[in-house]
Amino acid sequence: MRCDLYPTRSSAAESFVPRRDPVVWSDAEPPGFLSGADIETFERDGFLVLHELLSEEEVKACTAELERLRESAAELQPETVVREPDSEDIRSIFRVHRQSPVFRALTRHPKLRKLVEYLVGGQVYVMQSRVNDKPAFNGDRFDWHSDFETWHAEDGMPRMRAVSASIFFSTNTVLNGPTMFIPGSHRRFVPCPGTTPPNNYRTSLRRQQVGVPPSERIRELADAGGIVAPSGPPGTVVIFDCNLLHASAPNMTPWRRSNGFFVFNAVANALQAPYDRDEPRPEFLAERMAA
Amino acid sequence: MRCDLYPTRSSAAESFVPRRDPVVWSDAEPPGFLSGADIETFERDGFLVLHELLSEEEVKACTAELERLRESAAELQPETVVREPDSEDIRSIFRVHRQSPVFRALTRHPKLRKLVEYLVGGQVYVMQSRVNDKPAFNGDRFDWHSDFETWHAEDGMPRMRAVSASIFFSTNTVLNGPTMFIPGSHRRFVPCPGTTPPNNYRTSLRRQQVGVPPSERIRELADAGGIVAPSGPPGTVVIFDCNLLHASAPNMTPWRRSNGFFVFNAVANALQAPYDRDEPRPEFLAERMAA
Repeated sequence: MRCDLYPTRSSAAESFVPRRDPVVWSDAEPPGFLSGADIETFERDGFLVLHELLSEEEVKACTAELERLRESAAELQPETVVREPDSEDIRSIFRVHRQSPVFRALTRHPKLRKLVEYLVGGQVYVMQSRVNDKPAFNGDRFDWHSDFETWHAEDGMPRMRAVSASIFFSTNTVLNGPTMFIPGSHRRFVPCPGTTPPNNYRTSLRRQQVGVPPSERIRELADAGGIVAPSGPPGTVVIFDCNLLHASAPNMTPWRRSNGFFVFNAVANALQAPYDRDEPRPEFLAERMAA
Repeated sequence: MRCDLYPTRSSAAESFVPRRDPVVWSDAEPPGFLSGADIETFERDGFLVLHELLSEEEVKACTAELERLRESAAELQPETVVREPDSEDIRSIFRVHRQSPVFRALTRHPKLRKLVEYLVGGQVYVMQSRVNDKPAFNGDRFDWHSDFETWHAEDGMPRMRAVSASIFFSTNTVLNGPTMFIPGSHRRFVPCPGTTPPNNYRTSLRRQQVGVPPSERIRELADAGGIVAPSGPPGTVVIFDCNLLHASAPNMTPWRRSNGFFVFNAVANALQAPYDRDEPRPEFLAERMAA
């Protein structure tokens, strides 16, 4: 039987499992546009907010492209389009880096690549890409979770050696359902109860049923680290660790909120057999290795 | 047929009805603990945040009393206890000023009384009182609404001559489902579509179905005034106009959020026959006149 560094779901036994991987995998000098303090922040909090990584033109190209994708959603691969629980509004479009040259270019943005390769200590590939729309008034919530927990159990990601980039395509305020983080929560792994049902992903993208950490664990981590929600104008980039607990409230404002979400996994951390599932999820949710 | 200054629901015809009542009814000097700027703020925005109205001891007495009420909820009048849609957690306890000497005293707090009597220009009575608990993780949302719209249609409040005091019994942050306001929205009345069903209040306290302003109106008002959510420690008092649009997101933090909510109506504005309903709602929701 293979070694499971982070047992969860069927094999969960502990309240917490200590992180057995570095947070920052490189020990060389960080890329020039980052300071030592930036790296320390990422190491300590599990995320980093960058306001000037992208140029205004790059951001505008993305928002225009997003508008185009929304209007031509019928031409997208159907399984990549997820709608709101209570309406036909688009909640997410997956695999945008393979359906749009603009978003493909974004995932190859030189500074962004340098940053994520520094953090995971080596070459990366795009494991998942999507745009998340939170429609006005009804954009739904995402409950507290660690992405790594799902990626490990359902996709077979062996180590914590992946980071996500959340890129704001519209202004994120503390009141329009922004992503909330528990700083420091990435340093412990929280096993989740339950067993992954077949085809769990078909419903979990709408509302997660397994992969939900026990409330007591969330409370302990939030008591220690607090809760923060980075805000900023379009173009703001939030890089966060794959194991950082996060959530988001509904968007109750009258204005749509749009973000891009790109997962960079280390090539050396290619997906294996899932740890709590027979079949891995489809590639539009988790590409298994660098193509 | 009596004159209806603010037609809504069955009798709605316009997109907006201009406010036909003053916001601040007194023109004398405000009470000494308020500045002229405070009154201008209330007039312009429709709300005012006061951090030092209550003493630390007064706040502690309230939070201890709230704990006592929660623990002895079985002894409260059953119709005054409202639970969460998805659980048995207590969401609101109504009529606390008649079920608890501590909250009765709070509604008679000298500074609070002076303030609200100044704003409505005369003697007041407590039309409604409640504590709102937002349980950790699941405390549910309230969609955008004007209290006056409901009080007018369902309770027969004739004029905009009432104010509410939201009193924080736990810290309200921008992230734990605080009340959000649209500043300036109190200066226009938004008629709502629909007809009040019988016993609407039994479900509307859980999720409002009528008395919901059209999305376009909310967007117009928010485009003009923005959205703000006052935050602060226990004891913070937010006074707001009866016609100010407000909403609140779920509480997704691991910490319960508790507020008191007290409605002061001018004695001269005693409730009449409802404007879109045969029978008025029960007294625990809207006391009809000063006792």
